[in-house]
Amino acid sequence: MLKPEQVDREVLETVPFAYAGRRSVVDIIFPEFTSVCPWTGLPDFGELRISYVPRETCVELKSLKYYLNSYRNVGIIQEDVVNQILDDLVALINPVSMTVTGNFNPRGGIKTQVSASYPHE
Amino acid sequence: MLKPEQVDREVLETVPFAYAGRRSVVDIIFPEFTSVCPWTGLPDFGELRISYVPRETCVELKSLKYYLNSYRNVGIIQEDVVNQILDDLVALINPVSMTVTGNFNPRGGIKTQVSASYPHE
Amino acid sequence: MLKPEQVDREVLETVPFAYAGRRSVVDIIFPEFTSVCPWTGLPDFGELRISYVPRETCVELKSLKYYLNSYRNVGIIQEDVVNQILDDLVALINPVSMTVTGNFNPRGGIKTQVSASYPHE
Amino acid sequence: MLKPEQVDREVLETVPFAYAGRRSVVDIIFPEFTSVCPWTGLPDFGELRISYVPRETCVELKSLKYYLNSYRNVGIIQEDVVNQILDDLVALINPVSMTVTGNFNPRGGIKTQVSASYPHE
Amino acid sequence: MLKPEQVDREVLETVPFAYAGRRSVVDIIFPEFTSVCPWTGLPDFGELRISYVPRETCVELKSLKYYLNSYRNVGIIQEDVVNQILDDLVALINPVSMTVTGNFNPRGGIKTQVSASYPHE
Amino acid sequence: MLKPEQVDREVLETVPFAYAGRRSVVDIIFPEFTSVCPWTGLPDFGELRISYVPRETCVELKSLKYYLNSYRNVGIIQEDVVNQILDDLVALINPVSMTVTGNFNPRGGIKTQVSASYPHE
Amino acid sequence: MLKPEQVDREVLETVPFAYAGRRSVVDIIFPEFTSVCPWTGLPDFGELRISYVPRETCVELKSLKYYLNSYRNVGIIQEDVVNQILDDLVALINPVSMTVTGNFNPRGGIKTQVSASYPHE
Amino acid sequence: MLKPEQVDREVLETVPFAYAGRRSVVDIIFPEFTSVCPWTGLPDFGELRISYVPRETCVELKSLKYYLNSYRNVGIIQEDVVNQILDDLVALINPVSMTVTGNFNPRGGIKTQVSASYPHE
Amino acid sequence: MLKPEQVDREVLETVPFAYAGRRSVVDIIFPEFTSVCPWTGLPDFGELRISYVPRETCVELKSLKYYLNSYRNVGIIQEDVVNQILDDLVALINPVSMTVTGNFNPRGGIKTQVSASYPHE
Amino acid sequence: MLKPEQVDREVLETVPFAYAGRRSVVDIIFPEFTSVCPWTGLPDFGELRISYVPRETCVELKSLKYYLNSYRNVGIIQEDVVNQILDDLVALINPVSMTVTGNFNPRGGIKTQVSASYPHE
Repeated sequence: MLKPEQVDREVLETVPFAYAGRRSVVDIIFPEFTSVCPWTGLPDFGELRISYVPRETCVELKSLKYYLNSYRNVGIIQEDVVNQILDDLVALINPVSMTVTGNFNPRGGIKTQVSASYPHE
Repeated sequence: MLKPEQVDREVLETVPFAYAGRRSVVDIIFPEFTSVCPWTGLPDFGELRISYVPRETCVELKSLKYYLNSYRNVGIIQEDVVNQILDDLVALINPVSMTVTGNFNPRGGIKTQVSASYPHE
Repeated sequence: MLKPEQVDREVLETVPFAYAGRRSVVDIIFPEFTSVCPWTGLPDFGELRISYVPRETCVELKSLKYYLNSYRNVGIIQEDVVNQILDDLVALINPVSMTVTGNFNPRGGIKTQVSASYPHE
Repeated sequence: MLKPEQVDREVLETVPFAYAGRRSVVDIIFPEFTSVCPWTGLPDFGELRISYVPRETCVELKSLKYYLNSYRNVGIIQEDVVNQILDDLVALINPVSMTVTGNFNPRGGIKTQVSASYPHE
Repeated sequence: MLKPEQVDREVLETVPFAYAGRRSVVDIIFPEFTSVCPWTGLPDFGELRISYVPRETCVELKSLKYYLNSYRNVGIIQEDVVNQILDDLVALINPVSMTVTGNFNPRGGIKTQVSASYPHE
Repeated sequence: MLKPEQVDREVLETVPFAYAGRRSVVDIIFPEFTSVCPWTGLPDFGELRISYVPRETCVELKSLKYYLNSYRNVGIIQEDVVNQILDDLVALINPVSMTVTGNFNPRGGIKTQVSASYPHE
Repeated sequence: MLKPEQVDREVLETVPFAYAGRRSVVDIIFPEFTSVCPWTGLPDFGELRISYVPRETCVELKSLKYYLNSYRNVGIIQEDVVNQILDDLVALINPVSMTVTGNFNPRGGIKTQVSASYPHE
Repeated sequence: MLKPEQVDREVLETVPFAYAGRRSVVDIIFPEFTSVCPWTGLPDFGELRISYVPRETCVELKSLKYYLNSYRNVGIIQEDVVNQILDDLVALINPVSMTVTGNFNPRGGIKTQVSASYPHE
Repeated sequence: MLKPEQVDREVLETVPFAYAGRRSVVDIIFPEFTSVCPWTGLPDFGELRISYVPRETCVELKSLKYYLNSYRNVGIIQEDVVNQILDDLVALINPVSMTVTGNFNPRGGIKTQVSASYPHE
Repeated sequence: MLKPEQVDREVLETVPFAYAGRRSVVDIIFPEFTSVCPWTGLPDFGELRISYVPRETCVELKSLKYYLNSYRNVGIIQEDVVNQILDDLVALINPVSMTVTGNFNPRGGIKTQVSASYPHE
């Protein structure tokens, strides 16, 4: 089991946003997010949604897929998943705003959804 | 049949919220809530939703499941279900805000939903 | 065919709202509402929704069912259905606010929904 | 409360089936069936489906509606509903075959569906 | 093909709104609207929704159906459909407010929805 | 109001089936069928489905649309709609088999579906 | 935790089937089945479906509800749930045929459905 | 593969908005948008939605279809699709406001939606 | 516009079926099929489904995608689409059986589905 | 990346089927199956369904979950997934019959479903 800091941030790339200065909204849905529960070692599954208003750069989608895939064998809890992804992507593209939401599959009959937003009010 | 005050509050546990100071929203859906009608002794069923903004601690999910399961043989009416759970969880984690909603199965052709929120305006 | 004033208001009962002073929202869905068209004598069907914020008392649900069932052979038009139920329930429990909505089955290819709210702006 | 034999069979009418000798299938869905429970006096609701292969006559639809509406204040159990309607319509149009299905709304958390078919094997 | 001014406005009738002074919302859904394309002569289909807050009168529903049916052989474009119906009904009942929306079936792979509102800002 | 025999059969055209001798199934869905009730003059609406196994020719789709559109102002009952269309198309393309089904919109709370098949057993 | 043989079979009642000799199908859906896992003590939830062809008696529905409710605190595995209910109801009404299906809520990400039928081939 | 500037803007036509000065909302859904990925040459698919408040002219729908079809063999990325269409249509009809949204099919397990609005805040 | 025989059959590849002799069913859904109407030049869209029982080889999926994409600028009618794909794939892998179904988007208000099967009865 | 033969078969356990000799059907749905593409190393996702008629033993569900989770880092193609699981479970419990179906998420716009059955005809 890997640690949260072992995800592959190096793989992330950006593309310039050709309409900088205009308000555009980009929504990304990744229904195949999976990581590992740090306590039981059992896999977790969920759908990630990333919504942002770009400033001057966008996240390159293929690199984002590789970055999100790198959580596959990482032991990490749900609150940390959405906040760490938020931090990594905000650092990458400096957006006007961004929200990351994780909609996780039920465990023990309980379904959870966690979201985190930038800027931090 | 047990009384409402006999639910198992001792089992509830917290986990620290690693991103205290940031605004995060946690939504919990528990579709398997069941208790007992205090007048007829017949079982009630419903889906509970708990939505909150954490301050410094979160509810530990497994302990929450055990707490909610402890209503199974408790005789309690719907308004009390959502308000008692709200009170117990607010006392536990002191959230910025919290709403508890019970979406109860139809009885006699009538379906009901009851919600209660903190802070109490 | 009975007249609108012949519905059974006497059957309505209240239960005290144990959390008076707190804001709680109660939603009631009654999908089996039926009355009679005052002009053709043909039955009307619809789903009634009653949503309210209680002050010090709630509507007792079983008595509400009997009250709503008492419209079964009453000749009454749709606007009167929702306004009369609103008046009867406001008089009964003096809520902070209440909306009654009737979602009526299509007749002649036309589907209608009518709502009325208290307080009357 | 009326008895099952008090339904209005006289209202039923037929129309000739212009394509007698050909196999045609007629399906009728009546989502607004309601009668009364003979023991509690409370209303029952359900969706009736009538499917038949006509021989030389069809059921006239408007008359069928009046016939089905005449169950409104009749106290009758579910097995009798579908079998009595089957008997009345078979006697009316002598079809090649017919199935009557009642899909009744839940009561006490139990949903039921009952069907009866002609010819009786 | 008829012209837009040849629709049957004479058929429209009103009923008094017994609760004048109260805020009530009436929603009408007419899924069977059809007219004719003025250029190709081919039929158009769509769902009309009319939502209004009555002042002192309501639209009588059966007369509304006849009015809407009178568009059947009228050649008229979509923007004119919703605006002409809005004008006719506002003139008829002088509502507090009204919105007419036409949700038209796809043509050439393009689906359109057009709405118009009163008062005109 | 036109008579059933006034529909436009002349407009129907065929295209050769290039794979004659092979079993192919063609399903056509026409959700915008409309005609007129011969007794009340009110419009009827429904979805027509035509399913057939071609022998040596297929129905040309654009011509089929014009043929079906020609029922628009024809007064005709539901059983005749499906049987007349079946007869016209069987005469046109001599298929291995064909079923025509009309799924008509509810009238008076009753929904009907009628089908007819070739060959006539 | 109670044992499987401690369910309340005594509560089950029958009603005569007035159309004995005819083929009728009765389907019963009970979405609120709950029992307890015999190993962990945690509650299980599921939807039970009972479908049968009556011979001379039917299951009385209210008594069936009490019987099914009596599994609430019984520790029993899924295969035993459907087979024991099948045995109890076959012994009660001697049907022509019966199938009992349990559609259980997911546990550990696995959803299961188990069915058992009479006669036993 | 064509370049983004090679789309067919000449084909776009307008129609006068007969109710200029009134607020009307026009929503256009085009589920069959397709272009080509400029890097891989593989086709992209998505649903375009164009929503605007007309000032004095509307977009003619058939010409819009031809314009959107002209992206078929154009290599262009998603952000450019919505912004270029927004620019072309704003230049064409000078609307009060307009939003163009592209809801693109998943690629590599990632689904994206991009929108751009006029006026640019 | 290309001709039907200009599709790229050379790109198709096979993979050995490791369980030859066992009955396995492979279903492939390709929702992004597009070609061109040979008469109008306008694009057609549809969902292709290919279902087969492999004998000794399977279709390699990536090569299938390139093959299906090669219809993009081909002028071809719907019956030919499914039959030509059936012929090409049967020639490629010699399956035990195969059915190709095209579910095409509505044109002029008419939706069509065409299927062809091997062996040809 | 692990090889297909490195999955954890040792973890599989059985439970006796208490009703041996009776026909019972067990359906298991596992929506969280994931493995790795042996050529690209990218993760695959899908829903596995296992349906069987037990002879004398059933698959223990928790052990099945661990077995299916052990494919997480295994490089294996879809046809092999369903056939290998079928072989392992048939060897484990010797069922009367069993079908394993994998419903895999789209890749490159293509969705696939593969099934394999025992006995092998």
